[in-house]
Amino acid sequence: MGNGDYDSYSSGMNVESVHRVAIPPPQPFFESLKYSMKETLFPDDPLRKFKNQPASKKLVLALQHFLPILEWGPKYTLPFLKSDLIAGITIASLAIPQGISYAKLANLPPILGLYSSFIPPLIYAMMGSSRDLAVGTVAVGSLLMASMLGREVSPTENPTLFLHLAFTATFFAGLLQLSLGLFRLGFIVDFLSHAAIVGFMGGAATVVCLQQLKSILGLEKFTHKADVVSVMNSVFSQTHEWRWESAVLGCCFIFFLLVTRYFSKRQPKFFWVSAMAPLTSVILGSILVYLTHAEKHGVQVIGNLKKGLNPPSATDLVFVSPYMGTAIKTGLITGIIALAEGIAVGRSFAMFKNYHIDGNKEMIAIGTMNIFGSLTSCYLTTGPFSRSAVNYNAGCKTAASNIVMSIAVMLTLLFLTPLFHYTPLVVLSAIIVSAMLGLIDYQAAIHLWKIDKFDFLVCFSAYIGVVFGSVEIGLVLAVAISVLRVLLFIARPRTFVLGNIPNSSAYRNVEHYPNAHHVPGILILEIDAPIYFANASYLRERITRWINEEEEKIKGAGSTSLQYVIVDMTAVANIDTSGISMLEEFKKSVDRTGLQLVLVNPGSEVTKKLNKSKFLDEIGHKWVYVTVEEAVGVCSSFMLHTQKANPMKDESEGLNNNI
Amino acid sequence: MGNGDYDSYSSGMNVESVHRVAIPPPQPFFESLKYSMKETLFPDDPLRKFKNQPASKKLVLALQHFLPILEWGPKYTLPFLKSDLIAGITIASLAIPQGISYAKLANLPPILGLYSSFIPPLIYAMMGSSRDLAVGTVAVGSLLMASMLGREVSPTENPTLFLHLAFTATFFAGLLQLSLGLFRLGFIVDFLSHAAIVGFMGGAATVVCLQQLKSILGLEKFTHKADVVSVMNSVFSQTHEWRWESAVLGCCFIFFLLVTRYFSKRQPKFFWVSAMAPLTSVILGSILVYLTHAEKHGVQVIGNLKKGLNPPSATDLVFVSPYMGTAIKTGLITGIIALAEGIAVGRSFAMFKNYHIDGNKEMIAIGTMNIFGSLTSCYLTTGPFSRSAVNYNAGCKTAASNIVMSIAVMLTLLFLTPLFHYTPLVVLSAIIVSAMLGLIDYQAAIHLWKIDKFDFLVCFSAYIGVVFGSVEIGLVLAVAISVLRVLLFIARPRTFVLGNIPNSSAYRNVEHYPNAHHVPGILILEIDAPIYFANASYLRERITRWINEEEEKIKGAGSTSLQYVIVDMTAVANIDTSGISMLEEFKKSVDRTGLQLVLVNPGSEVTKKLNKSKFLDEIGHKWVYVTVEEAVGVCSSFMLHTQKANPMKDESEGLNNNI
Repeated sequence: MGNGDYDSYSSGMNVESVHRVAIPPPQPFFESLKYSMKETLFPDDPLRKFKNQPASKKLVLALQHFLPILEWGPKYTLPFLKSDLIAGITIASLAIPQGISYAKLANLPPILGLYSSFIPPLIYAMMGSSRDLAVGTVAVGSLLMASMLGREVSPTENPTLFLHLAFTATFFAGLLQLSLGLFRLGFIVDFLSHAAIVGFMGGAATVVCLQQLKSILGLEKFTHKADVVSVMNSVFSQTHEWRWESAVLGCCFIFFLLVTRYFSKRQPKFFWVSAMAPLTSVILGSILVYLTHAEKHGVQVIGNLKKGLNPPSATDLVFVSPYMGTAIKTGLITGIIALAEGIAVGRSFAMFKNYHIDGNKEMIAIGTMNIFGSLTSCYLTTGPFSRSAVNYNAGCKTAASNIVMSIAVMLTLLFLTPLFHYTPLVVLSAIIVSAMLGLIDYQAAIHLWKIDKFDFLVCFSAYIGVVFGSVEIGLVLAVAISVLRVLLFIARPRTFVLGNIPNSSAYRNVEHYPNAHHVPGILILEIDAPIYFANASYLRERITRWINEEEEKIKGAGSTSLQYVIVDMTAVANIDTSGISMLEEFKKSVDRTGLQLVLVNPGSEVTKKLNKSKFLDEIGHKWVYVTVEEAVGVCSSFMLHTQKANPMKDESEGLNNNI
Repeated sequence: MGNGDYDSYSSGMNVESVHRVAIPPPQPFFESLKYSMKETLFPDDPLRKFKNQPASKKLVLALQHFLPILEWGPKYTLPFLKSDLIAGITIASLAIPQGISYAKLANLPPILGLYSSFIPPLIYAMMGSSRDLAVGTVAVGSLLMASMLGREVSPTENPTLFLHLAFTATFFAGLLQLSLGLFRLGFIVDFLSHAAIVGFMGGAATVVCLQQLKSILGLEKFTHKADVVSVMNSVFSQTHEWRWESAVLGCCFIFFLLVTRYFSKRQPKFFWVSAMAPLTSVILGSILVYLTHAEKHGVQVIGNLKKGLNPPSATDLVFVSPYMGTAIKTGLITGIIALAEGIAVGRSFAMFKNYHIDGNKEMIAIGTMNIFGSLTSCYLTTGPFSRSAVNYNAGCKTAASNIVMSIAVMLTLLFLTPLFHYTPLVVLSAIIVSAMLGLIDYQAAIHLWKIDKFDFLVCFSAYIGVVFGSVEIGLVLAVAISVLRVLLFIARPRTFVLGNIPNSSAYRNVEHYPNAHHVPGILILEIDAPIYFANASYLRERITRWINEEEEKIKGAGSTSLQYVIVDMTAVANIDTSGISMLEEFKKSVDRTGLQLVLVNPGSEVTKKLNKSKFLDEIGHKWVYVTVEEAVGVCSSFMLHTQKANPMKDESEGLNNNI
């Protein structure tokens, strides 16, 4: 292509001002693979802080990375300790009845619930990156374990084997969690969106609140299921069993807790009022029951607890078939679900307090605590939603509240069990209910509806899934809809017609900028997504439709016939071989109708692939421009020249080919 | 914001030339929903051709839409008939032994294979949009049906019930396929990429070739599994059973077929040589066996076939529990897999011949033919790979070849069964092998490796999955990896630093255009994907890293300190609430470091959402520009002014806030 020829046709354009799209130098395969792997698995560049540091400092940093307690521990202050002490004691007072009831759910000895609140929180406090997560057993995990292991071994006929299988399942759950973290697959957690978490939390809070009706109404029999239908059915099928003493006590405490929280919100100076309220309730409730002997009038109390610390259980793990298979399966499923709950809860509170959670670190921490737990008579633990909410509301500052809880549970196991004998269950339910009510974030849901309907759908599905199905169903629904949204975005990308904004060199979407005007004889399109297999055939059809519509419009108006189709590739971040085939076929069909295809600003990745596949040669390097402005300039001057020289279209085609 | 104030600071810029980002008018929810639904489900705008047409024409168009035969039928020519006749007879000669062997695979009476090649092809010929698909039963579907139904009912102890369940499963498979098509969910087929199809076809061809060793070596016992390990094991575990007569015959015919194909490829005028070769082989082989009585020397022949057309089977469908559940489950699974195979095969050949397949229409056609099939003693049919390949190679022009095959099978069922008595199975294997060899497209795989490594991975996984696992495993692997790629694209989008291209107003990726130069004091970033929950935290980290790296570089070089971060949102096609929260948090953290965040060219969807969530108010409408050029112009003139007026940073911040 001689520069002279070129100049003579583009009479209206200054040739010097036309810029060529650079073809990036080929990159060795392994280098680009290394780069993508780094961006995918190490986006936070965890080794950056190690750069240019002496070896001793490197060691300290590495230890701090795996044991965050070494980072926040030295900066720990007395006010922090005060807050963590209050929070820790509060969650400890919650952990005892919660632990007992969840262990019962899992068909395991009640004392296991206390054991599980002693060792795992200590390990999490050293390794976890969340400041608000309170470690303990969870309802869903307990339920799942009971049902999955129960299919193989009866907990009533062979309780020892059942117990050992529970330890084994916990061990494998921990192993899975640890490996996900070590292989840096923490980013799968990113697929739990903000909207999903709002819905999930709201749903879980609703369900947990409803379940508290058991203790508030003083019911003895209750469903093990968590969905609203089963719970309401269970509540209203035994109205004759309702105990007014219990209900009155419960309502009073809920009222007390809500009032103190409201007061503390209004008067931030008196934050300790609401922080101390749960513990006060527990003490008040226990004294009240002790004095009035209310336990004999339908107010359920915790009752007697066995003394002594966790016995070791390493030798109890079952590594022989046929039971090991069941244990592995149970471990994998409960492990994933516990992880999802723990990280969702951790992320939610991190969002409230505006700090960052490292998903990989969390997985390592949760995995390690479950492995150690399985060796010390604990079963599956994670960050349960209710306990973490109480921890957060009690004003915890660091993971030290877990240590406090652990020590409190230890002391309880050793000495204090008799003191909790008279603690009414209804007070603990009141604490849970008041914590939950603050977390049904209907305002966030309204905000989602206003801004993004699809996010609202995700949130709503998560809520409905949790409330009417189960926590897993809610999570799966939310993740599935979120992923579907991403796939739909790729499968059906937006395409726009661009127009020139007056007094500017910019070309923008004419629907967005109604004052942008059309360039006669040229159709400028923008594709708003990478061109992949999932959208290649859609894009071909859609672009063809744009061209047809434009030609019909021109026919109607009788203006200059369409001669150029400019495709702005700025937003096409990537292309695959299906996309390139589509472009090749599209080029052929456009050629057949006598139009010229022009590409503008393909990105480096796209340019590289178009060049390798010879598409740039096929279309001609002169039909690829850096800006829409230049492409339009060159096309317009070609049209001007063609009209002057020869009004026939065929001839102009020939001329173009000569250049 | 007074215009006067503004002007006084932007001394270097002409205020008139600064364009504001338009905020699109709010769109009613149902209108935007309608638009998205249309783009998602009706991208081809099937009602367009009905517009402005008289009612009678509309009826014709509607009929043509659902019965494509009405479209191509009237244009049908004699040369087409000749080609279709040859192709139809060729595939009929293949359909008979294939049908018999697949029916045996499914533990069903052999005659069912012939029935299934009579009714379904007639229906497909009227309704299908592929010109190359030859309808018939498939190995995978037959295998799956045998194993899934066999778990419930024994085919040897209760053959009648087993047969009736097979009809019922076929009925439900058809129902599923039809509904997917009617609800316009054909786009799920788009997730089978070109790369996946290349790998899938290569794998299937390899497996089918290896399976032909059964007849070529004259083996009587053979594995029902399709993976290469089982097949090779089956072949080499019975070397003493190999029959040289059969092998010699097979190799001769394969050689004959390959030579004719090579010849026809070289001499396109003699295309009929290769088209006639399979039929010739069948006739030659049958005569040879008849004359030499080779069937008594280890050459297997088709043998005797029962006479008579399909009996009706509507009353045989089983709609009572407990068997109906099994039939539904089998129907759904085999239906999906048959659909995937049929459409993958149809799309592959459409790609070769460069025409378009409508996924929805195909689903309706395949579904209808299975529903009708289940009422006329046929079992699950789709577009089998091997038969369609032979059809394609024999030079079929339209779906009329299916009608020819159907008539040929009908005549066979009525009169000609004795003629096929002596057809040696080895000849049919030779026909299959020679068709398959042409479809192992290693060159396409090399092309994929050169252009797009990820596409190669998809192709390779599909191949390995099919060869070492099964057709389903290959398909699932390929789709899973393809979807993973899309998710990874969203989870880890690219971000670039932009620089000014000399003598131009364009700002482009500095890695792509090494001559693009940096603007002092300003960092310009481009995000190359929508900002969604899946990448929000990654993007925040990545952008923060860009800023840190830039500040370190500046510190090292001692040049103007960083004051503005311009984010080019051109390629950000959409944003969700997680993305908006990320921007809000990012804005806060940028503010804390004394930097000013500037947005450029958010799209209409993004602008709308940023406006609704008040982010535009938060950042200030004056910090959102239409082009990078204008943003840089304004920022530079602010910096110039600030330097002149007051070198203190705090003061300049105050000034900015005043504006």
